[in-house]
Amino acid sequence: MTLTPAYAAQTAKAPLAPFSIERRAPRVDDVVIDIEYCGVCHSDIHQARDEWGHGIFPMVPGHEIVGRVAALGSAVSTFAIGDAVGVGCFVDSCRECASCRAGEEQYCEHGMTATYNARDKEGLPTHGGYSTRIVVDQKYVLRIPPSIPLDRAAPLLCAGITTYSPMRHFGVKAGDSIAVVGLGGLGHMAVKIGRAFGANITVLSTSEFKRADALALGAHAFAPTRDADTFKRLAGQFDFIIDTVSAPHDYNAYLALLKTDGCMILLGVPEQPSTVAAFGLIMRRRTLAGSLIGGIAQTQEMLDFCAEHGVASDIELIRMDQINDAYERMLRADVRYRFVIDIASLRK
Amino acid sequence: MTLTPAYAAQTAKAPLAPFSIERRAPRVDDVVIDIEYCGVCHSDIHQARDEWGHGIFPMVPGHEIVGRVAALGSAVSTFAIGDAVGVGCFVDSCRECASCRAGEEQYCEHGMTATYNARDKEGLPTHGGYSTRIVVDQKYVLRIPPSIPLDRAAPLLCAGITTYSPMRHFGVKAGDSIAVVGLGGLGHMAVKIGRAFGANITVLSTSEFKRADALALGAHAFAPTRDADTFKRLAGQFDFIIDTVSAPHDYNAYLALLKTDGCMILLGVPEQPSTVAAFGLIMRRRTLAGSLIGGIAQTQEMLDFCAEHGVASDIELIRMDQINDAYERMLRADVRYRFVIDIASLRK
Repeated sequence: MTLTPAYAAQTAKAPLAPFSIERRAPRVDDVVIDIEYCGVCHSDIHQARDEWGHGIFPMVPGHEIVGRVAALGSAVSTFAIGDAVGVGCFVDSCRECASCRAGEEQYCEHGMTATYNARDKEGLPTHGGYSTRIVVDQKYVLRIPPSIPLDRAAPLLCAGITTYSPMRHFGVKAGDSIAVVGLGGLGHMAVKIGRAFGANITVLSTSEFKRADALALGAHAFAPTRDADTFKRLAGQFDFIIDTVSAPHDYNAYLALLKTDGCMILLGVPEQPSTVAAFGLIMRRRTLAGSLIGGIAQTQEMLDFCAEHGVASDIELIRMDQINDAYERMLRADVRYRFVIDIASLRK
Repeated sequence: MTLTPAYAAQTAKAPLAPFSIERRAPRVDDVVIDIEYCGVCHSDIHQARDEWGHGIFPMVPGHEIVGRVAALGSAVSTFAIGDAVGVGCFVDSCRECASCRAGEEQYCEHGMTATYNARDKEGLPTHGGYSTRIVVDQKYVLRIPPSIPLDRAAPLLCAGITTYSPMRHFGVKAGDSIAVVGLGGLGHMAVKIGRAFGANITVLSTSEFKRADALALGAHAFAPTRDADTFKRLAGQFDFIIDTVSAPHDYNAYLALLKTDGCMILLGVPEQPSTVAAFGLIMRRRTLAGSLIGGIAQTQEMLDFCAEHGVASDIELIRMDQINDAYERMLRADVRYRFVIDIASLRK
């Protein structure tokens, strides 16, 4: 076991603060990773503050992890010391259910083992990337293509795959019209990845001031959702809607923007569920779907796709000791578009 | 023009009563059909009572029409006098939009011309199958396979295609598990057609007394929805849910019965929309969809499929002058499983 510097929430009420965790000695299939960067996902805040319940404290968040291979178990032959690697939202799964066998470990019927705030198969709490080192079974380790800067690759492990996976699964293709609702961490990745699919992207946002950013990120158009005319003007226009918003909003208003056979994909989880009128779905055979991150094989596919298309996250690099301020700024939606922790700041 | 005996609602408040309508003289592409049977769809009641608004009165309902070809326009070569034919929910569409070109006329971007309670391209009100004769462009006329009894074929034109189309579109295949919610006109067709697809069918109904009927119709299982244990026991069990219910119900409770990648298809339109919690969709990549009848080509495919698999509706044959009583019985869900009007009773 290795004593590892980290930042943890001691309780749901406490700010994050320095802490030490133990990482297991590598097993035969393990990859030991010296973490260089870790992205800050909005779910880190929800979990560190136990807003979803069932929090395991002390908690070390972080599931957008990139670093370099520091050591290898004896059975690992596909990674080498020094390789740039990544770890996303989960570090294990049952490996036997239909979802695991299909490479869709995120839907593991026995529950994937989340990278943090979960218990591994031995019942020990998992700890995430707000730390200098992590030890992960090789099956759950991604390879970061050399052309993607490591710090800008980190958010691909959650925000990237969360937007890529439904586009691939539900069949986004060149020439499709996509509305991206909300321009935050997920939204900005949806713009970049959707654009790389060859789709025509319109960003819909409450914040008129995000227009310039949306276009700079690659969107073809921007439409303010506080303007009722937007919903008239864009009725029946989109093949897909990627809805990244967690604030309450009326799904029916957005569903009406879909063409016949259009699909609206929910990635955000509003606390207050919206109503859905059957009529709007029936009259145009529309679908309302949800999607959760992506499997390991597809995450690797996404990383390779991003490398091929020059896609990476837009980030603000912070020191580990800035994390509590970063959380406050995220709650004000004041980040363009993902905070990434420079884990070197935790080694000093 | 031909004066044609019919039954009409003179106003939204009036019971249906004898009336005469004029049918146009056949154009070159028209098929003149002597109607033999017309199914009674629940939407006939909604429209005759103007519960959906925009009713055109006097109104002759009926869009599950079967009969025999009585005369043909000069350009019609694919039908012959005496052929058994059918007309469903629409008698025209723009023929030019993407949906029409794709053979999905029900989603015509300019609006299909409904068989009744609509206006045709000349602006004249359309009148449905509660009448002895109808004149329809050949493109919108179906061929009834000889092995299906004509009276039992009538409801296939709406209830049949409404359940067949989403099963085909969303990819139901042999071995899939389907929950059919509600055992009425639509539900009983969903059981029969789903069974013919080779799927494993469970009927979910508030009415425990429908258990025997469900099994007799071909369902493999029945589960009462008033028993909370049903929702625990069947969690995550179904590939598809065919939801035929128009009474208010909690979509989330049903969505939880879907497997990963399962799809719940709404065919009923509750007056009060249900809420939908994003979480239930996201965690298993479930989809909530709607579907509207089907296109002409697919309706013909459905009729041929039903003939091949020995599928027809279970009906109660009534005289035209029993229609008002039939409506009252339908409102009490007292029909097994579709009323069909013997139009001979209108000729006497």
